Amino acid sequence: MSITQRSTGSARPRIVVLGGGFGGLYAARALRTAVADVTVIDRTNHHLFQPLLYQVATAVLAPSDIGSPIRHLLRTQRNTTVLMAEVGEIDVARRVVLVDDGREVPYDYLIVATGSRHSYFNHPEWEAMAPGLKSIEDARLIRHRFLSAFELAEKSDDVAERAALMTFVIVGGGPTGVELAGIIPDITRHSFAADFRRIDTGRTRIILVEAGSRLLPAFPDTLSRRAKRDLEELGVEIRLGSPVTNVTADSVSIGDERVATKNVFWAAGNAASPLVRTLGAPVDRAGRAQVLSDLSIPDHPEVFVVGDAAEMKRDDGSLVPGVAQGAIQSGRVAAKNILRLLAGEQTQAFHYFNKGDLATIGRYKAVASFPGFTVAGRLAWWFWLFLHILYLAGFRNRLSVLIEWGYSYFTYQRGARLITN
Amino acid sequence: MSITQRSTGSARPRIVVLGGGFGGLYAARALRTAVADVTVIDRTNHHLFQPLLYQVATAVLAPSDIGSPIRHLLRTQRNTTVLMAEVGEIDVARRVVLVDDGREVPYDYLIVATGSRHSYFNHPEWEAMAPGLKSIEDARLIRHRFLSAFELAEKSDDVAERAALMTFVIVGGGPTGVELAGIIPDITRHSFAADFRRIDTGRTRIILVEAGSRLLPAFPDTLSRRAKRDLEELGVEIRLGSPVTNVTADSVSIGDERVATKNVFWAAGNAASPLVRTLGAPVDRAGRAQVLSDLSIPDHPEVFVVGDAAEMKRDDGSLVPGVAQGAIQSGRVAAKNILRLLAGEQTQAFHYFNKGDLATIGRYKAVASFPGFTVAGRLAWWFWLFLHILYLAGFRNRLSVLIEWGYSYFTYQRGARLITN
Repeated sequence: MSITQRSTGSARPRIVVLGGGFGGLYAARALRTAVADVTVIDRTNHHLFQPLLYQVATAVLAPSDIGSPIRHLLRTQRNTTVLMAEVGEIDVARRVVLVDDGREVPYDYLIVATGSRHSYFNHPEWEAMAPGLKSIEDARLIRHRFLSAFELAEKSDDVAERAALMTFVIVGGGPTGVELAGIIPDITRHSFAADFRRIDTGRTRIILVEAGSRLLPAFPDTLSRRAKRDLEELGVEIRLGSPVTNVTADSVSIGDERVATKNVFWAAGNAASPLVRTLGAPVDRAGRAQVLSDLSIPDHPEVFVVGDAAEMKRDDGSLVPGVAQGAIQSGRVAAKNILRLLAGEQTQAFHYFNKGDLATIGRYKAVASFPGFTVAGRLAWWFWLFLHILYLAGFRNRLSVLIEWGYSYFTYQRGARLITN
Repeated sequence: MSITQRSTGSARPRIVVLGGGFGGLYAARALRTAVADVTVIDRTNHHLFQPLLYQVATAVLAPSDIGSPIRHLLRTQRNTTVLMAEVGEIDVARRVVLVDDGREVPYDYLIVATGSRHSYFNHPEWEAMAPGLKSIEDARLIRHRFLSAFELAEKSDDVAERAALMTFVIVGGGPTGVELAGIIPDITRHSFAADFRRIDTGRTRIILVEAGSRLLPAFPDTLSRRAKRDLEELGVEIRLGSPVTNVTADSVSIGDERVATKNVFWAAGNAASPLVRTLGAPVDRAGRAQVLSDLSIPDHPEVFVVGDAAEMKRDDGSLVPGVAQGAIQSGRVAAKNILRLLAGEQTQAFHYFNKGDLATIGRYKAVASFPGFTVAGRLAWWFWLFLHILYLAGFRNRLSVLIEWGYSYFTYQRGARLITN
């Protein structure tokens, strides 16, 4: 018996969605009205509001503030079953997904929304020393290192060791790197200041490293320069045009410079989920499926790939960025194309609509780029706050996030500073 | 150089407090005015409001709702340093505590408040199958098993396996066991009900096992019977006078009965922290130090043991129960006795004042025993809520706990249902 058959004799088409991130969740929601059996499979039980993951990594928010069970978010959708399972392989010839210890989930239509992991540019051995930030486990690991560094520094009598513990190197100048670098000074100068006796947490050193020539490469150049200036005012050291050449347990090499540090966090480079390769479709260098304009893969009109797992083109031929909006929009389009196929209609092409890009820089500052205009500073920050609360509104957590934020911002006290294993 | 010397030439007496639980935290707070260098050492970075740990274990509250960094709670106390370190041994002859990899922390006065772990009655091998509930890690492990059981049941096609996954056996009929058993039906019947498609979570089986003849042995007999009746109305099966005779990965034996279950949680029996034995003082069967009336140990008037780590007597000769009140009161008395010794005065005896006992049973029900009267039902529950918010008021988390609770109780939705590793 297959684990997706819900009742004997069901002849309804089976739609399987792999992944419960932005792409998968919004695809599943768009299938709400489908006369079909929809199955969402994820290796975790929760959908995650990834744009705020850096606040979990720095102990501002608790994991449950930005995550909700996928099955809970889809509970009113009676045509949809959620399974927590590890997907090992997709067999497009037989139209089955192999999960867990080899059980088979058959499908008539498939949406692959398995996202991406960080890429270490042919240095997978760096990952252990320089964790990335994609999942709750990642955020908890970074939080553990971030909080433990100050505990160890407080105990240490060795000046060099203390300095290495209190030096944070963030690799990657995109939004995640910028937001992570920008929030740390706020925490170390204010929230931590009164708590320690032997160290001055205000003297924490933060270095943001970017291989390219400017921060936030997806933003207009004026905002890149603004972000750099704002971060420098917060005391963050910025290294542009500086590729990382080595990472060890107690140092990072930036070009020819060797910086002693116990804390390297990775926010650079993406590689699509390895599951994508099992489709047998053409992939780009980052392992993303090179989808057709309707988001299906060549020769398999029943298989769609969306979000970070796909190489999707904009109307001008440039790539759709790996952000939440891209995943949400492509997830919806793939779902609607399946609805069209079920109705005997033609699929339609995906057109990405850029609603704008936002990144916060510490407390009360942000940069925002919208089609036609840009905003920076305090106004952009309020805009960022408003938009994030609006997007979080699909979840139960918005009130508790708002309170944590309010508390953090107005008292300089931080919320979720537990070191656990 | 010792890690507690803060400035060269300091001749102030050194007071070391081991443990940042109720005993240690309230001892440290009572030393606020001491002209001394106070050092609090804990292997974690946080104080925990343990009476609510069962709500973290069942995903109602997030870990950070009931925990706060010890150093943050003591941040305004300028004579106090907090160290996160593992204490390996106490050398009372040399008056040093050995921490981490053998570093020495010297003391003039010592308060041992290291609490207790669960006791498995000479079956330590049961611990892996039947986790207890003392720390955030414990709660997270139980939460992981609790949430995963339903995920696995939803995937399973094997009727017997499903039944074993949906059977929860709680060992121990004290407050923790009663509260854990009472909250599960509420969650499985309401919060989970709409989320699953293939299982009926309302049919979850909950068995509460107590070796003694009644639940809540520290409470008056009428409340024990009331708790039993209330739990049975919630569908909990109660086995009194039923010692557990074996625990395996997929069963528990209660007397001669073997129950197939994947979920055994342990809330029975305490054993004092093994550190207590390194004091060389007499200990009772549970490993607790047999302290003198002023809470010091024989021959060492400078060493005090408090809370769960000590066998403390009431005025009538009976033992002080291992509850928060006992730890708080004894911690304060030990601290005040040190202040007296510093002032050249005599120490005073500890007199436990029983402020009352409370246990909740599911939603809106509780039993409460106060000197002279008892209360049960809804009134007791409001009393419980009021008292817990009052006690949590020392922390930043009270508002967020109140919101989580309010949200949970009025919408039947649960807060922190993330399965993470």
